[in-house]
Amino acid sequence: MSNVGVIGLGSMGLGVARSLLRAGFAVHACEPRQDVLQGFVAEGGKAAADPAALAKAADILVLFVVNAEQTDQVLFGADGAAAALPKGAVVIASATVAPDYAENLGNRLAERGILMIDAPVSGGAARAASGQLSIMAAGPAPAFDKASKVLAAIAEKVYRLGEVPGQGSRIKLVNQLLAGVHIAAAAEAVALGIRIGCDPQTLYEVIGNSAGNSWMFQNRVPHVLAGDYTPLSAVNIFVKDLGIVLDAAKRNAFPLPLTAAAHQQFLAAAGAGRGLEDDIAVIKNFPGIALPGKAGG
Amino acid sequence: MSNVGVIGLGSMGLGVARSLLRAGFAVHACEPRQDVLQGFVAEGGKAAADPAALAKAADILVLFVVNAEQTDQVLFGADGAAAALPKGAVVIASATVAPDYAENLGNRLAERGILMIDAPVSGGAARAASGQLSIMAAGPAPAFDKASKVLAAIAEKVYRLGEVPGQGSRIKLVNQLLAGVHIAAAAEAVALGIRIGCDPQTLYEVIGNSAGNSWMFQNRVPHVLAGDYTPLSAVNIFVKDLGIVLDAAKRNAFPLPLTAAAHQQFLAAAGAGRGLEDDIAVIKNFPGIALPGKAGG
Repeated sequence: MSNVGVIGLGSMGLGVARSLLRAGFAVHACEPRQDVLQGFVAEGGKAAADPAALAKAADILVLFVVNAEQTDQVLFGADGAAAALPKGAVVIASATVAPDYAENLGNRLAERGILMIDAPVSGGAARAASGQLSIMAAGPAPAFDKASKVLAAIAEKVYRLGEVPGQGSRIKLVNQLLAGVHIAAAAEAVALGIRIGCDPQTLYEVIGNSAGNSWMFQNRVPHVLAGDYTPLSAVNIFVKDLGIVLDAAKRNAFPLPLTAAAHQQFLAAAGAGRGLEDDIAVIKNFPGIALPGKAGG
Repeated sequence: MSNVGVIGLGSMGLGVARSLLRAGFAVHACEPRQDVLQGFVAEGGKAAADPAALAKAADILVLFVVNAEQTDQVLFGADGAAAALPKGAVVIASATVAPDYAENLGNRLAERGILMIDAPVSGGAARAASGQLSIMAAGPAPAFDKASKVLAAIAEKVYRLGEVPGQGSRIKLVNQLLAGVHIAAAAEAVALGIRIGCDPQTLYEVIGNSAGNSWMFQNRVPHVLAGDYTPLSAVNIFVKDLGIVLDAAKRNAFPLPLTAAAHQQFLAAAGAGRGLEDDIAVIKNFPGIALPGKAGG
């Protein structure tokens, strides 16, 4: 049984860890919330006290932490994994981060003889749980050779985007730009529709078969129709991710007018105390409309 | 052989007129460009000198003109159709117009005993040509009864959205909001991708299978990849349509921040002399990038 380590058992990481268990790996995990960690142990996983301990048990690590800061912390902070990993180990880094950070991280790990796969994902918690993520992957060929069974266990599709970390995160950045703008656009469209007297369910059905459709419109508008803002992905995620997009563009003196407008919508929702609601809660920014369901008051 | 009239043989109307010919109708057409009109006659159509003459030849009229002004002109202007149509005739009005205009038009025609179907469409020129449009239709039941074979000949899907004209145009308005925002977002995303070093073809393939996808991203980005800005639908169409959306929202004191940002992008492209290029030419607004193809200079 091959050993693999997972750092971060959030909504994405837990699904990935379970997919690895199903595929027959010995899965070691590191997670600050002890109840979640012990739940995973009850399912057959193994608990590691900290990233350094994890690195002694497995030489392929999958990181499902939230951002660049946490990625840095679990690799290079106190009891970090990097110092404990053997040469030739592979780090699969999946947080959405600035491409320059990912490229730099690859260099810092390479100095220690550690291989990195820049591996942001698309697909959400449901596909993480079923082992069917899409991975936008970039890294040296030996890393892919060593990690091929791990990647196969968690992903339906692995896009090989080059040898240099950063290329995955560049495409992910563009994907997040569109995802965030499309959520804000779906909210704006449905809000206007309600305001001018469209039946929201009919609107959803007709536009789902028309040129105005998007993956996000299809996926998020049902939350509005159900009045259910349980966070499958929270407003705060796009406060963060569109912030990364805008920062990367700013460093290149590149204007992104729609992204900036969408970011303001997520900021407005977060500022109104809705940062932990589902991201389509940006529709609550709009005045004078009665949303479906009990959340519409 | 049943008679039907088509006013406007543009990229949409000509396809619709041909679909009606294929379905076995005697198709009378009215179109100011004589070469286009005579080309249609050569295919088996019949030419009418003006809308009033058309109204004497057919008591079901399909309007594929550009906007509310032209709709008004062909119905109520000099040699307009309305005064020449018999009671019980049906007008199928397909231009994208303000919902309040459509509702009012239904009332004005009803005063003359003429039935109106508010019938904006989705699907573009290709589906107009193949008789597979989606129609967002609202109007009185007797109008649908009388026009059922005409609608079947031109549409794959007819959404019945109510008895009162305006309900079709309301949904169409929301669809155009999304379509316009998604085109501007696709341009912004691909432009950023090129700026930060993504291969555009790879970007297209990966995002087409990810959460950032939209109908418009799928449909328009290939034009950028081919460097081909031949107008299948022109920048000026969205200058107009997002203007209609913003005006309707303004009348309701309703804010549309993303729509406003997208409208500015279409205005910027039109102001730079690209109003007659394909709508994805908004990508040429972005500075400092080399677009694929000869148009990228």
